[in-house]
Amino acid sequence: MKQKLIFTNLVGEAVDTLITELGNPQVAVVADTNTAQFVLPIMQKASKAVADATVITIKAGDANKNLDELTALWRHLSEMEATRKTVVVNLGGGVVSDLAGFAAATYKRGIRCINVPTTLLAAVDAAVGGKTGVNFNGLKNQIGAFSEPEAAIISTIFFNTLPEQELLSGYAEMLKHGLLESPQMLAKLLAYSPVYPVFNSEALLPLLKDSVMVKANIVDKDLKESSLRKALNLGHTVGHAIEAFAIKHQSPVAHGYAVAWGLVTELVLSHMVLDFPVETLRSFAEYVHTNYGAFPLTCKDYPELIAAMRQDKKNATPDAINFTLLAAVGEPKIDCTATIEQIEAALDIYRDLMHLD
Amino acid sequence: MKQKLIFTNLVGEAVDTLITELGNPQVAVVADTNTAQFVLPIMQKASKAVADATVITIKAGDANKNLDELTALWRHLSEMEATRKTVVVNLGGGVVSDLAGFAAATYKRGIRCINVPTTLLAAVDAAVGGKTGVNFNGLKNQIGAFSEPEAAIISTIFFNTLPEQELLSGYAEMLKHGLLESPQMLAKLLAYSPVYPVFNSEALLPLLKDSVMVKANIVDKDLKESSLRKALNLGHTVGHAIEAFAIKHQSPVAHGYAVAWGLVTELVLSHMVLDFPVETLRSFAEYVHTNYGAFPLTCKDYPELIAAMRQDKKNATPDAINFTLLAAVGEPKIDCTATIEQIEAALDIYRDLMHLD
Repeated sequence: MKQKLIFTNLVGEAVDTLITELGNPQVAVVADTNTAQFVLPIMQKASKAVADATVITIKAGDANKNLDELTALWRHLSEMEATRKTVVVNLGGGVVSDLAGFAAATYKRGIRCINVPTTLLAAVDAAVGGKTGVNFNGLKNQIGAFSEPEAAIISTIFFNTLPEQELLSGYAEMLKHGLLESPQMLAKLLAYSPVYPVFNSEALLPLLKDSVMVKANIVDKDLKESSLRKALNLGHTVGHAIEAFAIKHQSPVAHGYAVAWGLVTELVLSHMVLDFPVETLRSFAEYVHTNYGAFPLTCKDYPELIAAMRQDKKNATPDAINFTLLAAVGEPKIDCTATIEQIEAALDIYRDLMHLD
Repeated sequence: MKQKLIFTNLVGEAVDTLITELGNPQVAVVADTNTAQFVLPIMQKASKAVADATVITIKAGDANKNLDELTALWRHLSEMEATRKTVVVNLGGGVVSDLAGFAAATYKRGIRCINVPTTLLAAVDAAVGGKTGVNFNGLKNQIGAFSEPEAAIISTIFFNTLPEQELLSGYAEMLKHGLLESPQMLAKLLAYSPVYPVFNSEALLPLLKDSVMVKANIVDKDLKESSLRKALNLGHTVGHAIEAFAIKHQSPVAHGYAVAWGLVTELVLSHMVLDFPVETLRSFAEYVHTNYGAFPLTCKDYPELIAAMRQDKKNATPDAINFTLLAAVGEPKIDCTATIEQIEAALDIYRDLMHLD
């Protein structure tokens, strides 16, 4: 693995150690307008490297993950006379690491960067795996690169002030990793819940570590998503369809919530297509219902949802759509096929499991 | 090696064979305003894949290797609904392969491309080795990626209409490869000359093949220029300084001419520092003088030239500058050091070898 993963809540010390190991280069810290206000001051106290660094601030929010902000970042790097040895420290959520990670991957044909994710979703997803990029021409991540950071420092100290909904959103990706990995990991995750007052950042760190390693090991074998990495799409074909459907009907839902409901539906499909055990499906669905509630659906919504699933998949046929499914917990199978009838039946069962009429 | 190198003057057939091997994907041909007019019609007759392709035209010239043209290219790819399987065929010189190669490297995090260089300089340099990028903020290749094309089709059929100066400019890079490789290759190159009426495109092809393979083998071992690839800088520290000096004094010279004079000066340094054989130096200098003439210099110009060499090098000290030098033909040594006194003496000898006062 090229990318070094460091799990610690002593983030400032970890940054300083890394920067020393990298030869004490010039450092640029990229923050967004939120993390510049709330996280940067803490980090400037905790880390000499951050205190001494040039700070570049970008606008927060996915709408700003665009070419204008990218160009501004390139210009900042150029004007601070960043060299091939300069290291960029990305302090923020997925928007910061996607955007600044791509800027670093392409400035002088690639300089080093370190991800310091400040949200659970970024820690478990965007900060690891080297997918960088910006939205373009109305399409998400249309321009980008596969480029792994030098290191990611994964901590839970920044999560104490996150809204519960954001914690749950990130936790859905952890659940996905548990499903991909083993019954033991899934059991640990289902025994925990990132909601107050249960939530505390120390107890979350070991769970987060195990979860991040699942993704890191997969990415290590298939950085460019030729095959194995598609396993990480589990829950996302239905999840993305729910997200798009919700936006279209003017009631957007957080990404992780859509993934949680998508996981339930795709476990139903896994049962139908690959005989995934029904007891595990039931307990997983119950956990999702308790923590995430239910996304309301009626059978009238099916055609629109299925059309959205098809949009997400290049090699869907008129009669069937391909999915990543599970034969059992820890046994993903990529490029499975489900017919439209099976998908409709799975949505019926999803509604049943979610106690919807 | 990731990149496939095909040496043939049946370019149309080679493109069609490659596109078939790549699974008959959607094809986009990128040409500049010159090649769109003079080369594209020939290729459309010779290749079904090119005839059927979407054509994207960019503005010719290094001044247009910028973010605006890059964005236009991304937009074209997006609007033609290019997928991860689409193949981009770069039909042009270095500006086309640098710009469109970078667009391909970053569209949807990387799609495949094929270089079809139409100038000698591009065939021997830009088309091979995966350096892509654009100029930004007044600096050359400031934004880019190391990303090798799927293949390069190297031919000499497009060179018949090139001005002699352009042929000589490209040939200087071939001379450099000969110096890096072996006395045999160098002897062959010095026995030939890409000037009319000697020049014919068939005789050049085998020489070009040998020369391109020198670069390809080096890049294969060190794509990202950590060490070995620096050997390709031979002649370029002094060459870039001459180029910059000439621009500053309002009489710009072609890149390859500056490299030819740079090679002579750096062979003098090689003799002084590494005992490079003096007879080889003399015959090489004579070839350069005959074909490229002499860049006029007096000892009053030395401080300005040496300042420009320093600019080109990050780890120059006040007393010395680092170079790639040769112990003998075929024996490059990277990270050599020459003192300012040695460089001044070498420039004296350059003037002598070039019959300057």
